[in-house]
Amino acid sequence: MGMNCNRVEHFEESTMKIQTEIPIHQVRLPPQRSSLTKLKHRLSEIFFPDDPLHRFKNQPCFTKFLLTLQFLFPIFQWGSHYNLTLLRSDIISGLTIASLAIPQGISYAKLANLPPIIGLYSSFVPPLIYALLGSSKHLGVGPVSIASLVMGSMLSETVPFTQNPTLYLQLAFTATFVAGLFQASLGILRLGFVIDFLSKATLVGFMAGAAIIVSLQQLKGLLGIVHFTNKMQIIPVLVSVYKQKDEWSWQTVVMGFGFLAFLLTTRHISLRKPKLFWASAAAPLTSVILSTILVFLLRNTAHHISIIGHLAKGVNPPSANMLYFKGPHLALAIKTGIVTGILSLTEGIAVGRTFAALKNYQVDGNKEMMAIGIMNIAGSCTSCYVTTGSFSRSAVNFNAGAQTAVSNIIMASAVLVTLLFLMPLFYYTPTVVLATIIIAAVIGLIDYQAAYKLWKVDKLDFVACMCSFFGVLFISVPLGLSIAVAISVFKILLHVSRPNTLVLGNIPGTQIFHNINQYKEALRVPSFLILAVESPIYFANSTYLRERILRWVREEEERIKANNGNELKCIILDMTAVTAIDTSGLETLGELRKVLEQRSLQLVLVNPVGNVMEKLHTSKILDTFGFKGVYLTVGEAVADISSANKAQP
Amino acid sequence: MGMNCNRVEHFEESTMKIQTEIPIHQVRLPPQRSSLTKLKHRLSEIFFPDDPLHRFKNQPCFTKFLLTLQFLFPIFQWGSHYNLTLLRSDIISGLTIASLAIPQGISYAKLANLPPIIGLYSSFVPPLIYALLGSSKHLGVGPVSIASLVMGSMLSETVPFTQNPTLYLQLAFTATFVAGLFQASLGILRLGFVIDFLSKATLVGFMAGAAIIVSLQQLKGLLGIVHFTNKMQIIPVLVSVYKQKDEWSWQTVVMGFGFLAFLLTTRHISLRKPKLFWASAAAPLTSVILSTILVFLLRNTAHHISIIGHLAKGVNPPSANMLYFKGPHLALAIKTGIVTGILSLTEGIAVGRTFAALKNYQVDGNKEMMAIGIMNIAGSCTSCYVTTGSFSRSAVNFNAGAQTAVSNIIMASAVLVTLLFLMPLFYYTPTVVLATIIIAAVIGLIDYQAAYKLWKVDKLDFVACMCSFFGVLFISVPLGLSIAVAISVFKILLHVSRPNTLVLGNIPGTQIFHNINQYKEALRVPSFLILAVESPIYFANSTYLRERILRWVREEEERIKANNGNELKCIILDMTAVTAIDTSGLETLGELRKVLEQRSLQLVLVNPVGNVMEKLHTSKILDTFGFKGVYLTVGEAVADISSANKAQP
Repeated sequence: MGMNCNRVEHFEESTMKIQTEIPIHQVRLPPQRSSLTKLKHRLSEIFFPDDPLHRFKNQPCFTKFLLTLQFLFPIFQWGSHYNLTLLRSDIISGLTIASLAIPQGISYAKLANLPPIIGLYSSFVPPLIYALLGSSKHLGVGPVSIASLVMGSMLSETVPFTQNPTLYLQLAFTATFVAGLFQASLGILRLGFVIDFLSKATLVGFMAGAAIIVSLQQLKGLLGIVHFTNKMQIIPVLVSVYKQKDEWSWQTVVMGFGFLAFLLTTRHISLRKPKLFWASAAAPLTSVILSTILVFLLRNTAHHISIIGHLAKGVNPPSANMLYFKGPHLALAIKTGIVTGILSLTEGIAVGRTFAALKNYQVDGNKEMMAIGIMNIAGSCTSCYVTTGSFSRSAVNFNAGAQTAVSNIIMASAVLVTLLFLMPLFYYTPTVVLATIIIAAVIGLIDYQAAYKLWKVDKLDFVACMCSFFGVLFISVPLGLSIAVAISVFKILLHVSRPNTLVLGNIPGTQIFHNINQYKEALRVPSFLILAVESPIYFANSTYLRERILRWVREEEERIKANNGNELKCIILDMTAVTAIDTSGLETLGELRKVLEQRSLQLVLVNPVGNVMEKLHTSKILDTFGFKGVYLTVGEAVADISSANKAQP
Repeated sequence: MGMNCNRVEHFEESTMKIQTEIPIHQVRLPPQRSSLTKLKHRLSEIFFPDDPLHRFKNQPCFTKFLLTLQFLFPIFQWGSHYNLTLLRSDIISGLTIASLAIPQGISYAKLANLPPIIGLYSSFVPPLIYALLGSSKHLGVGPVSIASLVMGSMLSETVPFTQNPTLYLQLAFTATFVAGLFQASLGILRLGFVIDFLSKATLVGFMAGAAIIVSLQQLKGLLGIVHFTNKMQIIPVLVSVYKQKDEWSWQTVVMGFGFLAFLLTTRHISLRKPKLFWASAAAPLTSVILSTILVFLLRNTAHHISIIGHLAKGVNPPSANMLYFKGPHLALAIKTGIVTGILSLTEGIAVGRTFAALKNYQVDGNKEMMAIGIMNIAGSCTSCYVTTGSFSRSAVNFNAGAQTAVSNIIMASAVLVTLLFLMPLFYYTPTVVLATIIIAAVIGLIDYQAAYKLWKVDKLDFVACMCSFFGVLFISVPLGLSIAVAISVFKILLHVSRPNTLVLGNIPGTQIFHNINQYKEALRVPSFLILAVESPIYFANSTYLRERILRWVREEEERIKANNGNELKCIILDMTAVTAIDTSGLETLGELRKVLEQRSLQLVLVNPVGNVMEKLHTSKILDTFGFKGVYLTVGEAVADISSANKAQP
């Protein structure tokens, strides 16, 4: 008690000081603008936050035309400066990623339950198109594991490839077309922010879950099982592996684990010493070559090892005639297309941004979406399935010193040569080596360190991460993803519907008012209750805020009673963090003022920001608060009201 | 230019002043708390924001028991003070609402395509239960138009009443049971905030749309049409009215419009002079009596007027055996139950709160939900359909001077008498008068003034309102409602994903920094760019914010170049309104610092709030900013950094 009084007295002095020094500033309305101007401003912030046309301002017509061309085809931007030195780097990196792309292409196509050759086709056309349209210099384009897995699992559940291969192919191409259309529309409509709703926390869990699902699927190839479950969830797969244990083939197992060890070792080496990146880059092709030779030599004794078999020579056949626009499975194709489209977009954009940040250049998200989308639309007409910027390929590309998108053209050329001449060489390639390549690739997606960091920094992010992880593992890939997105959105809504309210106190000798919990030196001002509302006031929280504020008042009155303090006279709401208000919020403020007035308590607002002030004004709520009801700073409010109270006690 | 220099010089002076006067305060971390304490605090804010147990603190055991009893059955709170004066008021108000409840009950049951007697049953049991459990003193309980309409439209689309009356009844009782269970669970789990997501803007549009839909349905009764469409949307109904114009019966039309004019006139009078509330309260019963007498007298000549016919005498028969827990229509019953449950809850809670605010007492939302839920569960076992606190009945109750929930008991007794003895009197009541009662009741739900106010104050709220209005009118009631809720949620997400960033300037001679758009006197500080971020930094906006801030920097550099100003050296981020941050946000801050450092620009944070500071600390991002990277106020940051810059130019 004694201390309490002391604190109060101390404050009284500083109040005096404030009164004599500080003139009162008026809260201003923002300059008046018409509804149309406001709408225009708002829409431009939503759709053009990066002001993509700022380079076009005040330029002559011809420059504008050139800029447009460069905008649509970034190749015109860097094409004119292209020289032999750059070409040399691009050839080296292009050939390096080709050595990765060929085995990956075959493997990932198998992951999507597609014929292996589709994977090679998909490593030929899309990279060429990306080289023309894409704005990233380091993106290595091709099929990726997650999108392949999701497409495979979503389509196979309804239409197993083995039952109706033509229909399956039709659906895969249609889904690719839909994915491309969806991606390009997001880019054109500048709705790129949609992918921001896949938070990093969600993706960490999703990727880890998907990696485990994918690895488990590879047990089929790794153990040489012939009859395997169609399901993707962890439990049926493990049951199936156990039940078919008489089908396990020891030759396959030995070879599989041997190459897996080799791949993981080279991966480990490259991670430790980035200079040795070629070790992990070349390992898949080395494995394919070695295993093919091995199987070829043992071809008369090892019948238990399943091989790829005959692959047709030749470039991508057209597939536009296979697009499937009506029929009972159209909805499935559209759904698959949208899910794989979002996933591949997320990966492509994130990878592009990561490497752009390392080399300090900008990647325009919306433009990238258009590039990836057009590449997939074109792909769907040339026997390709969903492609995007792949993380592993781009990392190798970057480390191998790629300078421009030409490395993608070089890679595509290498794939072309393979398609035209080298296909028969893959006849004896064992499928087990494809399984090991997939496992080695996806194991890197399990980022337990990131998960641990989430746990340490933000428990709710960790929950979102775990939900997407277990959702993918035990339910299904698209559902796991939806759950994770729902949790992320729910987290936002929870924050909005239960915002913080803080009690502020004065830091003695200053005009600074701060949270008394965070700043122990901050003192409550006698007769005042100063609250900061830390959120927009919306329909979703207005009821809560009204009741919470009334509870603060009740608790403050109880505290004052217990301490024999000065009677509470005024409640100050610091609105600095109230960045928006809607009609429900306005009504709540009005009601709150009335309720408090009935208890002879004054309610005062401090520092409403521009648009809140505007709405207070148009809704006439401001008039009920009156001239003395709104102040610019808490200090001014306290000084002015206490001097007014002293004048008329 | 000249003016610009002037402003800058002016500022230099005030900077000097700041430097000499202001000591630098350190930003503090909030006191350390364990994860468990934080979780507990967070959960109690989410589920117990009103601290419902605060009365139980420090009380002896017996008092706690009494308080618990009073908590569960509010009747024990006011029961002991009940006296004859209160009873007199309650009898008057109870009888008044009974005169409204009887015709309303019959009419609303017809709206739900149920036999009229179900409406009377529903006005008997639920009010009795509410009187025991409810905490509102003025709520008049019974069937309401919106919930009746929604139940009728949702069930009839699949199971028309005329085809299978028993199944329809079963589904209606099951839906009521589900609605009650859902409502009670929301209350028990303290998830009452779910109904906050139906914003007022949404409800204004929804109610108006529903009112029009309901009124159009009444054209059947009002025009005497026999063959009417089963659909609810505006277009098929109008087409049907036009096509069946040979079925129109002039006697019905004349009688209908006559009574409609009577009802609307009394309603208008009561609205103008609240003292004459009894005019509109008694009008429906008067209409029923007059029209019944009229039809009775004309019974030999007016065969075209359809009448209610025989109604069974007696109290509610039990209906627990009719609940339908398996079968093909269970999903429909559950869906209908949840939609009508939410709608009736929203109306009941809103009405309860409105009248509580008028008489300055509190209504506990979660407790009300339990009361309404239990009342519906009990109702579903005693042949009642969904009931809640009705706006029209509560308004009459309030105006008639109701003092406690006893008025509901009186009303129920009057209904009981009707059920036992007066049923034969309704034999000749024409259905057209029921249609007029419904129209007169729902027309009041069209609140065009509220819609106009939304338009004036908040355009986006108006859009939500219009979407729910047209959604209900042209698509369907539940879909219109979902669209409206989706728009409200989307509005929140949009605000979160595209937050405002403001440029702050100093108000000369003060330590106040404010939006230079809102405060024309605020001056930019040379060499500094001071930005305020007006939202939590989340995964959903971190990419946007990074790009937006970099754009501010680019624009500021261009501005400086054009004006020959001082070189930009430091970017200050005012974090006062950044009320939360997640892992993506933390990463963005770290990246932003790096990118700006590469351009030799310093990034400084000002006033991070408690939990943001905590996360900056645990994620080690704070360490990268260093000791001189975080300040308590913008003024201190500017003063300290400019003096440091002067010391080492």
